[in-house]
Amino acid sequence: LQRQLSGMMLSAGNGVPSFTPRVVLELASDTKEEAITWLLSRIRDTQYNGGTELLVEQLGPGADAQEKENPNMFLVGATWQRLLSGAEDLGLFKEFNDGSMRAFTCANKYNFKDFKGDGDSFLSTAECQYIIKHELDTLRAKDETHVPGLSRVKLYPGKSVIRRLLSKGILIQVFPLHEKEELKRLSFAWYKKVKLSFQPLEDIRHYYGEGQALYFGFLEYFTFALVPMALIGVPYYLFDWEDYDKYVIFASFNLVWCTVILELWKRCSSSLAYRWGTLSRKKAFEEPRPGFHGVLGFNPVTGRQEPLYPNAKRQLRVYLVSLPFVLLCLYLSLYVMMIYFLMEGWALSVHDAEPTFWTGILCFIPSVLYAVVIEIMNLIYRYAAEFLTEWENHRLESSYQNHLVLKVLVFNFFNCFASLFYIAFVMQDMVLLRQSLATLLITSQILNQLMEAFLPYWLQRRRNKKMVRKIHKGKTLEDQELPLANQVRLEADMSTYLGTFDDYLELFLLFGYVSLFSCVYPLAAVLVVLNNITEVYSDAFKMCRVFKRPFSDPAANIGVWQLAFEAMSVIAVVTNCSLIGMSPQVKAYFPDSDMQLILWTVAIEHGLLAFKFILTFLIPDVPKHIQINLSRLEFESREALKKKCVSSALVSTLNAE
Amino acid sequence: LQRQLSGMMLSAGNGVPSFTPRVVLELASDTKEEAITWLLSRIRDTQYNGGTELLVEQLGPGADAQEKENPNMFLVGATWQRLLSGAEDLGLFKEFNDGSMRAFTCANKYNFKDFKGDGDSFLSTAECQYIIKHELDTLRAKDETHVPGLSRVKLYPGKSVIRRLLSKGILIQVFPLHEKEELKRLSFAWYKKVKLSFQPLEDIRHYYGEGQALYFGFLEYFTFALVPMALIGVPYYLFDWEDYDKYVIFASFNLVWCTVILELWKRCSSSLAYRWGTLSRKKAFEEPRPGFHGVLGFNPVTGRQEPLYPNAKRQLRVYLVSLPFVLLCLYLSLYVMMIYFLMEGWALSVHDAEPTFWTGILCFIPSVLYAVVIEIMNLIYRYAAEFLTEWENHRLESSYQNHLVLKVLVFNFFNCFASLFYIAFVMQDMVLLRQSLATLLITSQILNQLMEAFLPYWLQRRRNKKMVRKIHKGKTLEDQELPLANQVRLEADMSTYLGTFDDYLELFLLFGYVSLFSCVYPLAAVLVVLNNITEVYSDAFKMCRVFKRPFSDPAANIGVWQLAFEAMSVIAVVTNCSLIGMSPQVKAYFPDSDMQLILWTVAIEHGLLAFKFILTFLIPDVPKHIQINLSRLEFESREALKKKCVSSALVSTLNAE
Repeated sequence: LQRQLSGMMLSAGNGVPSFTPRVVLELASDTKEEAITWLLSRIRDTQYNGGTELLVEQLGPGADAQEKENPNMFLVGATWQRLLSGAEDLGLFKEFNDGSMRAFTCANKYNFKDFKGDGDSFLSTAECQYIIKHELDTLRAKDETHVPGLSRVKLYPGKSVIRRLLSKGILIQVFPLHEKEELKRLSFAWYKKVKLSFQPLEDIRHYYGEGQALYFGFLEYFTFALVPMALIGVPYYLFDWEDYDKYVIFASFNLVWCTVILELWKRCSSSLAYRWGTLSRKKAFEEPRPGFHGVLGFNPVTGRQEPLYPNAKRQLRVYLVSLPFVLLCLYLSLYVMMIYFLMEGWALSVHDAEPTFWTGILCFIPSVLYAVVIEIMNLIYRYAAEFLTEWENHRLESSYQNHLVLKVLVFNFFNCFASLFYIAFVMQDMVLLRQSLATLLITSQILNQLMEAFLPYWLQRRRNKKMVRKIHKGKTLEDQELPLANQVRLEADMSTYLGTFDDYLELFLLFGYVSLFSCVYPLAAVLVVLNNITEVYSDAFKMCRVFKRPFSDPAANIGVWQLAFEAMSVIAVVTNCSLIGMSPQVKAYFPDSDMQLILWTVAIEHGLLAFKFILTFLIPDVPKHIQINLSRLEFESREALKKKCVSSALVSTLNAE
Repeated sequence: LQRQLSGMMLSAGNGVPSFTPRVVLELASDTKEEAITWLLSRIRDTQYNGGTELLVEQLGPGADAQEKENPNMFLVGATWQRLLSGAEDLGLFKEFNDGSMRAFTCANKYNFKDFKGDGDSFLSTAECQYIIKHELDTLRAKDETHVPGLSRVKLYPGKSVIRRLLSKGILIQVFPLHEKEELKRLSFAWYKKVKLSFQPLEDIRHYYGEGQALYFGFLEYFTFALVPMALIGVPYYLFDWEDYDKYVIFASFNLVWCTVILELWKRCSSSLAYRWGTLSRKKAFEEPRPGFHGVLGFNPVTGRQEPLYPNAKRQLRVYLVSLPFVLLCLYLSLYVMMIYFLMEGWALSVHDAEPTFWTGILCFIPSVLYAVVIEIMNLIYRYAAEFLTEWENHRLESSYQNHLVLKVLVFNFFNCFASLFYIAFVMQDMVLLRQSLATLLITSQILNQLMEAFLPYWLQRRRNKKMVRKIHKGKTLEDQELPLANQVRLEADMSTYLGTFDDYLELFLLFGYVSLFSCVYPLAAVLVVLNNITEVYSDAFKMCRVFKRPFSDPAANIGVWQLAFEAMSVIAVVTNCSLIGMSPQVKAYFPDSDMQLILWTVAIEHGLLAFKFILTFLIPDVPKHIQINLSRLEFESREALKKKCVSSALVSTLNAE
């Protein structure tokens, strides 16, 4: 009762609420009062009545209120008891007294490590926000047929209210708030120190959740894994620059390297996920995505009413429209590549016939044009892929993401590597290959970091300054405390972080350059290592300063990207074997017969592929000690169950007799 | 109490016990009385006191008792309540009222389909026997340091008594009893009907358990899958016998066929396993195998005392002894093969130089010698493999089995196919390949069925007749009822069924002949279909008449064999592509360049392999409707848990306020 009252209390002057605000709901500024009242009462209602039992308050006007400010911003928080029961609902894993990870239960709370009294520092802010988001997402319509006051926003029993409001544009955004102090500490540990150090993965996980922490963990792992490669590459560069023959050894090293690092990453990733309690956490049943539409029916699993869309229809869309479209795009990309090579050949011939300054410039034009066209194609394709995947109408966000990743991945792979493959295997021109590789690596590196972090930062900074100047004239952003209302509005205006997709894609392409062709250009690994180091800083910077705080995502692994990297490493085996087979050094062993050479190359390649699969099979994905821990937990829970069984059987036997 | 008494009651004359006997324990005839008394009392003791609460009685002497008869045979049974609580312990899945499969619980028993009153026909005899075996296996030593009366049989707290007695040879065997009536019904449905029909899988599962039923299911599936292949093969045989060119189409068909049938089998197998309730049943924690030895320590998972053996030591044995040994054997096998080809070449040259009757016979000698040597090598290798795997000292039976299967599989594959590969790719002699294939298929088929079913049957029949003659002179085995004691002793003398290993191995090799080379000899599929049909009958016959009834094995799939068949289908892609590349028809397309031909072949092969993996990935292993059922069950159990959580949270909140 006390809590109910405090939730309903008016906020104490200057927009400061009576609880710790965690999440912000921004409703459209023209939303009817009736709808808002209904929504707030539903959020505040007890769980027994189908509410979420969360605390929610309207955000007061900023220090320098303007006409155009949206008044419909709401702060959401929760009591400690509510958060703990939410953690139990979600099945969050926390460290137990004995050091193992167990699903948190309220009944057992005192046996968890770090649980002192009622909470502080037990749940991280990211976890609190994730719990609140989950509770908001599972706020379901009861018998309302539409949102009161908004007859166009239809509801049916069991429909998630927040998702419907989002898909209808009533709810503009839901985002978690930054925590100024924590952020300052994190950013200091992360990118403000000058000396190189390990990533503060625990802090990142604490502040941004497991998904982000795994990305930075992978980035760090990948960089360290590249170091031996880079170290071997440097002497190659310094001493044997023109001696292509030597790359046989380098290519062989490459083969082993890319298999082993991916296998070890799996183990590494599962260690991290175990430590963070996401390894054995069962995923909650996914709700349909907000954009999913279909005929209302009953979900065969949950029995709840929800839109259904026939799977066959989706499959038809995927295989009859999306697949041909992707293939067409690949063909187009190939076509553009051929035009580029024709143009380049023509420009070279013009230059050779009559070498002047202008023909020298002409030689560069095809490359520049090609680079520009590729970027444009990537951009257009990305929009098309998003449109198509949306149109395929996937029920789950995860399936939507997988289909999108696959589409974008294949096209980007093709666009980036098709010309290199053409140069390597059709033109067989290793000098040109080396040049193209170097150009691609260096330009993409510079462009990426500029586009990704510094441009958005600069834009954001301009916006911030404008706002700060309005409030406190003359002071800088760093050394002052903005009132909460202004801080919230500032964050609401920041760009939304769209997930780790683009970051992983970039790593994937870099991994491709190194694993496929670095034997031709041994400096590639060095460049990628340098790139990764700056990437860490720019990514950390953009997470802390440019984007809204994202909701944490309790990932147990890097998901579909593990598969993508493994596919790339299989392609790397084939490519490296072919490069070895084509090297003059190897050719010298088979002076009289090309056929013998090819047969041997193919045989060795098959052997290596088989070896790779056996290796994947032999190296366990989860380290032994974690496996033991997991089975112990399972064993204990089963023994407990069995004891319960035996005692209940005894009771029933006694009753029967 | 009543049950306790009935368990202790003396058996009512002529060895007929007062309960349904299910399992027989045979102890060594010289076992001390003290040990027997102790064992029986431990078995009869209540679960609360660490016993098994099973019923056990000594088997009386046979109708025609002899001196040399072993008196120490014990019949084990259980009351219905005990069996039901055992089924709950084991987590057996049974059909629920709503048609779904759920883990059986005593509390909920009336909601299960087919549960009438207290049991009859609810648990199959195979299930009852499996439950009793499980309970016997988990009878653990308390604080005994050795078996009373047998100081050499050491015990420690938590050690499985039955396993220790087995490994010390005190317990000679534990086997389940046949059920005469049921067996008669089953064998009629299975192999006594003349008309062809589907396998009575449900009945097989009911009588022999899921492992056997899955084997027969797979055998049937494989036979049906071969029918299209056989139908296509016949016209090839009739019309285009000498036209090797045509086999391109056949090989392409082969490629698609072997990928698709294996994928579909996975779905089929999971449907069966779902229907039988083994798909989602969690395996119990495996006990160490009886032969496992090591230094006594504490199991990190269960915390129980048990022998421990360092994994590193085992790995060393596997990689430093077993692996080199297997490679050596493969080399030896290759060496023998080369000698065979040399001898054959020599014999042919002798025959060509001076063709007489004796040189004609000489031509056959190498083949016969080779076949004999191969059989001997297989036999010796099998013993060596068993010895080595035993010596590797695997803790779990499953890991022992996997290592043994792998060893035997690789060697058998090599022995059977090396000569065919040599003929196909080194000698490139398609006529010889066809001949060898036909010879191998037909001889192995005839030999197998003779050795596998009819020879043991004949031996068994002789033994039975001797015994029957002693009791009822003149009557035949079929039309009379043996007294229980004699029946039990008869069964105890039957050979022990050693599991489905050899049956699967045979199918694996047949699958190899068809998928690798049937394009060269299209009749192979027809022969294999015929073989499979007789195989069904001979296997059914040997299960019903030759062997002791085996304990059922609640398998959810065909285990490591699925992997083996898939590996074979990958090899089949490579082989078929090479055969296509070598065909004169394809060679005609590349008249001027062998290199072009090889490159194209390799490219297409890689494409096909990629396609195969994508296909494996795209076809879900579990059919949609079963996935839905499984997720529904999980959803329900989670919702139930959540409700419990919310109510307990409510209670704790109320208490706190």
